[in-house]
Amino acid sequence: MFEYLEVNQPLFLKRLAAYIHFPSVSTQSEHRGDLLACADWLWRHCQSVGLTSEIIQTGGNPVVLATTRQEGGHFKPHFLVYGHYDVQPVEPLSLWHSPPFDLTRDGDRLIGRGASDNKGQHFAHLNVIEAFLKTGTELPCDVTFVIEGEEEIGSPSFAGFLSRESSRLCCDGIVISDTTIPGLRQPGVACSLRGLVSASIKISGPAQDVHSGLHGGAIENPAQVLCSLLAGCRNAAGTILVPGFYDSIIPVDARERESLLKLPFDEAAYCRSLGVSRLAGEEEWSALERTTVRPTFEIHGLKSGYQGEGIKTIIPAVAEAKVSLRLVAGQKPEEVLTALEQMLRAQCPDSVKLEFIPGFRASPYAISQDHPLVQAGLNALRLAFEAEPLLLREGVTIPVLQLLRETLGTEVLLLGLALPDDGMHSPNEKLSLAAFNAGMRMSAHLWQELTATVS
Amino acid sequence: MFEYLEVNQPLFLKRLAAYIHFPSVSTQSEHRGDLLACADWLWRHCQSVGLTSEIIQTGGNPVVLATTRQEGGHFKPHFLVYGHYDVQPVEPLSLWHSPPFDLTRDGDRLIGRGASDNKGQHFAHLNVIEAFLKTGTELPCDVTFVIEGEEEIGSPSFAGFLSRESSRLCCDGIVISDTTIPGLRQPGVACSLRGLVSASIKISGPAQDVHSGLHGGAIENPAQVLCSLLAGCRNAAGTILVPGFYDSIIPVDARERESLLKLPFDEAAYCRSLGVSRLAGEEEWSALERTTVRPTFEIHGLKSGYQGEGIKTIIPAVAEAKVSLRLVAGQKPEEVLTALEQMLRAQCPDSVKLEFIPGFRASPYAISQDHPLVQAGLNALRLAFEAEPLLLREGVTIPVLQLLRETLGTEVLLLGLALPDDGMHSPNEKLSLAAFNAGMRMSAHLWQELTATVS
Repeated sequence: MFEYLEVNQPLFLKRLAAYIHFPSVSTQSEHRGDLLACADWLWRHCQSVGLTSEIIQTGGNPVVLATTRQEGGHFKPHFLVYGHYDVQPVEPLSLWHSPPFDLTRDGDRLIGRGASDNKGQHFAHLNVIEAFLKTGTELPCDVTFVIEGEEEIGSPSFAGFLSRESSRLCCDGIVISDTTIPGLRQPGVACSLRGLVSASIKISGPAQDVHSGLHGGAIENPAQVLCSLLAGCRNAAGTILVPGFYDSIIPVDARERESLLKLPFDEAAYCRSLGVSRLAGEEEWSALERTTVRPTFEIHGLKSGYQGEGIKTIIPAVAEAKVSLRLVAGQKPEEVLTALEQMLRAQCPDSVKLEFIPGFRASPYAISQDHPLVQAGLNALRLAFEAEPLLLREGVTIPVLQLLRETLGTEVLLLGLALPDDGMHSPNEKLSLAAFNAGMRMSAHLWQELTATVS
Repeated sequence: MFEYLEVNQPLFLKRLAAYIHFPSVSTQSEHRGDLLACADWLWRHCQSVGLTSEIIQTGGNPVVLATTRQEGGHFKPHFLVYGHYDVQPVEPLSLWHSPPFDLTRDGDRLIGRGASDNKGQHFAHLNVIEAFLKTGTELPCDVTFVIEGEEEIGSPSFAGFLSRESSRLCCDGIVISDTTIPGLRQPGVACSLRGLVSASIKISGPAQDVHSGLHGGAIENPAQVLCSLLAGCRNAAGTILVPGFYDSIIPVDARERESLLKLPFDEAAYCRSLGVSRLAGEEEWSALERTTVRPTFEIHGLKSGYQGEGIKTIIPAVAEAKVSLRLVAGQKPEEVLTALEQMLRAQCPDSVKLEFIPGFRASPYAISQDHPLVQAGLNALRLAFEAEPLLLREGVTIPVLQLLRETLGTEVLLLGLALPDDGMHSPNEKLSLAAFNAGMRMSAHLWQELTATVS
């Protein structure tokens, strides 16, 4: 089976290129057709490697289901692999060095939108299951792939899908490869993720852009109001000013802080990789803590008035922002969104109109390092990477994670294959070929380890 | 001559439509060819009506010069008409109800970009001089048109042009029709204008947009810095926080405030026309004062990160704003720009990079109501509009005004023909046909009145 994985690597890369070629950007409605075509391709691919595959309509983008289970043969332990075939937008296009949907190899780098987030990562598992099936190696368990198309927009249709399909998705554990490891010599299991809430904020003033010489001084400027509101969300020390924001946080315990501070971290290299002159944020926490166990407020986009060359002396009719907050243990998405909206409404003058459109609502996640699934994951990593795996805390969010745990009543194991410089969500996103190969070796060991957790 | 103006109105409108058809947007470099074609058309037009016309190259967009003066016949008083053939950008296009460069008539409304700012306004004077020439009516003075193509970008080439051509532009007064009157029954001479400085502000953080889950908390967010800086420029009460900003203002005297407060102003109608629920700004000043004799700080545009549908959870690499300040009597453009830049630099954290690109630098303008040119203007308005003209204070800026006065050593008379709802700089900009006709009658009376001021 390991030979099959090695011999077929060129084929795997060719298929990954075909998969990445679909511009399956769920955020942008003009790509709806591309998402459907991508799901269709994935379904056919799963069929062709010997899985029983199905496209499940959801009202939104469909879910592709593919399983090793045979009708009437429900005796083996059963594990799910969750992934998503939708990707982030590619703008700004000018910063890509190769077409984002043409998988381009540059040494160890497999460059393309979705290479690491998330097409490449769940493909590693798919290739391994294919190897089991094609070489006639017995899988000790059944594996079902659940690959959805709305992860990057907060999985709005996934709750309905899960509750409708919960009986056949009933399982002994869920594997997700959609997170980062510090390096190829530092694989690990992610034991916590941050939660996320997001919102679009729109301030409307005059019915259309008006001349600032004629009307400046008499009416409120929506862009000025927006800037004041956003400036009031976080201070220069990095403290988030939403009332009650920190109240329900469960403190990180001393042992955890200690283990976090032991993780490898080269600040100068990190600054270089991001292109910043120095780090910034809450001084009383290390950078690793600030990106994993501390909450954040971030502005993702600003839009108002004239953005072209030169200047246009107008008072803009509208000013808009997109923002999000990452949440940590104890924080409740709905409470944070409500507090944010209330604060903005209280501070917004009534001479303009405020619209607050909530987006993501994802709870933070944590699993004990003693959980059998975590131990099984560590064993598989140890065998595949030939390095002592770490217990990781991650700053990213997988919106469906809480939903999967609650609906299916089982735990999630996070086995990320992305590297810190993969540029998930950024131009020139890539997957490391070495990580892809190590990920396949890990998956080849994983199913035996997972099966052993089911007594 | 008045008959000529009446009979030829359809022809004038046809020509105005041809003039407006050039998308002569000086702010956007892709329109360079349109500006050249527009200048060429104007030059030919001036020739065809009997003026001696010339295109003067400037390094930037050319100036069109057209005069009634004959070689060797320099005995008459000489007046200039200044105007500009360049126009503001038309974005957002979706808000126009007709194509912006197709002059569209709707009752009294002549709709098109540049209809009132400024093609239509200087065209009124051109038509009148044509009427003098074509009907053989003797002009008591010589008139030279100076129509430039860079007014909307701060006239960067005009200083050089003026100093090179100053000898033949030497004159007894300069007429500019590029401002607003309160209504057709309230014509007036503008006795003061605000000055203007503008700047583009750019905050740069990471080398490219990065994932806010992976890096949020560790590095500064350029959009957050931009919002904080802009929020710090003006407070909720409308007070501008640039250090020393108010120090050099020459106070409005009590008599002036009184006359300003007497000007017709219907606040409810004004709110309706702008589409705002209420006015805002410095409480201790009336709305008319706030838009004419009080300075302002305005944000014209914001741009950062992801602006598309949905959300993209990134820390943006760059955040940009375009801002300007209107200045009043006593304020010096260069001092204000320097103070603004210093304040921003002092407040900007060194974890991001700040670029400050100055734009416009225009001094405020004022003329005594007792000046003979003002009295001549009032007389012409009285005859043409059959209403008692007002002494107006305007909030807008004509960047070249100070330059014209200083280089040519003569005074400027502001005889605006725009109405408050003309929407200069806005979508669906229009010129009132009645104002256009009254403006031609005014111009027909003006040259005799102006000639009488030269003893």
